[in-house]
Amino acid sequence: MNTDFHHRLAAVASEIEDVLVAIFDVATDPPVPARLLNAMRYAVLGGGKRLRPFLVVETARLLSGDSGAALRAGAAIELIHVYSLAHDDLPSMDDDELRRGKPTLHLAFDEATAILAGDTLQAMAFETLADPATGDDPTLRAELVLLLAKAAGGAGMAGGQMLDLEAEGRFGEGGELDAHAIRQLQAMKTGAILSCAVEMGAAIGRANAQQYQALLTYGRAVGAAFQIADDLLDVEASSAELGKATGKDAGRGKGTLVSLWGADKARTELTRLVDEALHALGLFGEDADVLRAAARFTAERRS
Amino acid sequence: MNTDFHHRLAAVASEIEDVLVAIFDVATDPPVPARLLNAMRYAVLGGGKRLRPFLVVETARLLSGDSGAALRAGAAIELIHVYSLAHDDLPSMDDDELRRGKPTLHLAFDEATAILAGDTLQAMAFETLADPATGDDPTLRAELVLLLAKAAGGAGMAGGQMLDLEAEGRFGEGGELDAHAIRQLQAMKTGAILSCAVEMGAAIGRANAQQYQALLTYGRAVGAAFQIADDLLDVEASSAELGKATGKDAGRGKGTLVSLWGADKARTELTRLVDEALHALGLFGEDADVLRAAARFTAERRS
Repeated sequence: MNTDFHHRLAAVASEIEDVLVAIFDVATDPPVPARLLNAMRYAVLGGGKRLRPFLVVETARLLSGDSGAALRAGAAIELIHVYSLAHDDLPSMDDDELRRGKPTLHLAFDEATAILAGDTLQAMAFETLADPATGDDPTLRAELVLLLAKAAGGAGMAGGQMLDLEAEGRFGEGGELDAHAIRQLQAMKTGAILSCAVEMGAAIGRANAQQYQALLTYGRAVGAAFQIADDLLDVEASSAELGKATGKDAGRGKGTLVSLWGADKARTELTRLVDEALHALGLFGEDADVLRAAARFTAERRS
Repeated sequence: MNTDFHHRLAAVASEIEDVLVAIFDVATDPPVPARLLNAMRYAVLGGGKRLRPFLVVETARLLSGDSGAALRAGAAIELIHVYSLAHDDLPSMDDDELRRGKPTLHLAFDEATAILAGDTLQAMAFETLADPATGDDPTLRAELVLLLAKAAGGAGMAGGQMLDLEAEGRFGEGGELDAHAIRQLQAMKTGAILSCAVEMGAAIGRANAQQYQALLTYGRAVGAAFQIADDLLDVEASSAELGKATGKDAGRGKGTLVSLWGADKARTELTRLVDEALHALGLFGEDADVLRAAARFTAERRS
């Protein structure tokens, strides 16, 4: 199972890579400036586990949804994810130097290019979803745009990054967050996009109300589990293993459930969330084994 | 006529303001972080002529398109425009201190907040278009997203800003642009969004192929005229009149048709472009008088 899962994860990552390469190839006509295109390719291609696209693709597959639409939607969500990494890494944000084992975008290029490349990736994500190439049904295309725009926006990913900067005491106040506030911040900052991946897959697979609710519960639990696993890795893994800086959250006084509760209690919560995710998939029987493996992988990954 | 036009421009600006206020009110539930919401409101509300929304609304009106859809699309294009101003003003980009007569967003707040607010405004623009509140027809909503995403992206606005920074010699090379390269840069940086405003109005009004082609010609000519007028104002107007810094382009060695040709020849080209815009509207008769006045206004404005 575990080997099967890793093969499948790698296979989807490879398919997503092909779609992303094709999107950038189209972008050369009419010509996107070479520097901008190079910066986007540097940030997007050849890296990452493509976990968000994987959730889109496997959720759609569970419901026998169109695989072409799922791959395009997966590519779009990855473009949003990568833009957010490029902007979060900027000196005025988290000021990070290493990402996916390479210098961050503003170091490989420069700040202005990193900002513009991120902006362009965001536009490209919505262009990808709205394009008829994603599917004949305009209702689905508009729904995918709506889901992703909400998840990326002020009540989702971007809003979560704002709360994160505030929690660091960047704007005067800051201070210790309680568990409720940490959960809220993380549900926005990383949870919204992970959960959106599952929702996009459900939309492509035309889930009925019961299926949709089950998948939403799964997506939210996986999103929360992902973040706790990330915070545990930040404390426990080496920078070389992760391909990005570690131990920075504690240094910045960032509140995480790990820093608030300690690693043991956080790990207990992580296990509970994975169980919640697995339980939510009950109605799908063994068809959902890949999504179950994805939930376990999220919690157990070492990078 | 001229007074009528200014009344109409102000009336549409007021309607757009109402739609924008409503969009931000909805954003408080679920809660967008207060600092982020305040930054977006600061940048978006209570300023600007709302020329791009005006072009959407008046083009749709010419074709008896749905006015509610046009106002939502106008609000969306203004959100994109304002996000681009906020990011272009950043220290690592154009480093501007004054915008619409107020301190730029990163000075009123801070760099990280300005970047995040811009990112959120972009997502909000696409959310606004994809939302069923913009219209019952999902084909139209998906088309509006596609038009705006293309215009805002690497082959449009963001790509134009990249070329502009390159032309300043930011990345080593730079140097004198010829008229062709200047036109290309400006068609991307400012022309694409202005032209997109007309195209969105045409889509909402379900223009036939002949109408669409005429409006596209109009939109492109107005976009090019707008930029020459802007470059003339940069040389001739005071900072107080414009509510932003002036004379900066020459200081930076930015290539414009005004700097390349001098003001007189640039003014001749401006007149030619306005004539081209007026000529393109021939098939609409006097129904298009408001769009004609908009073309003249674009060329003759003093701020």
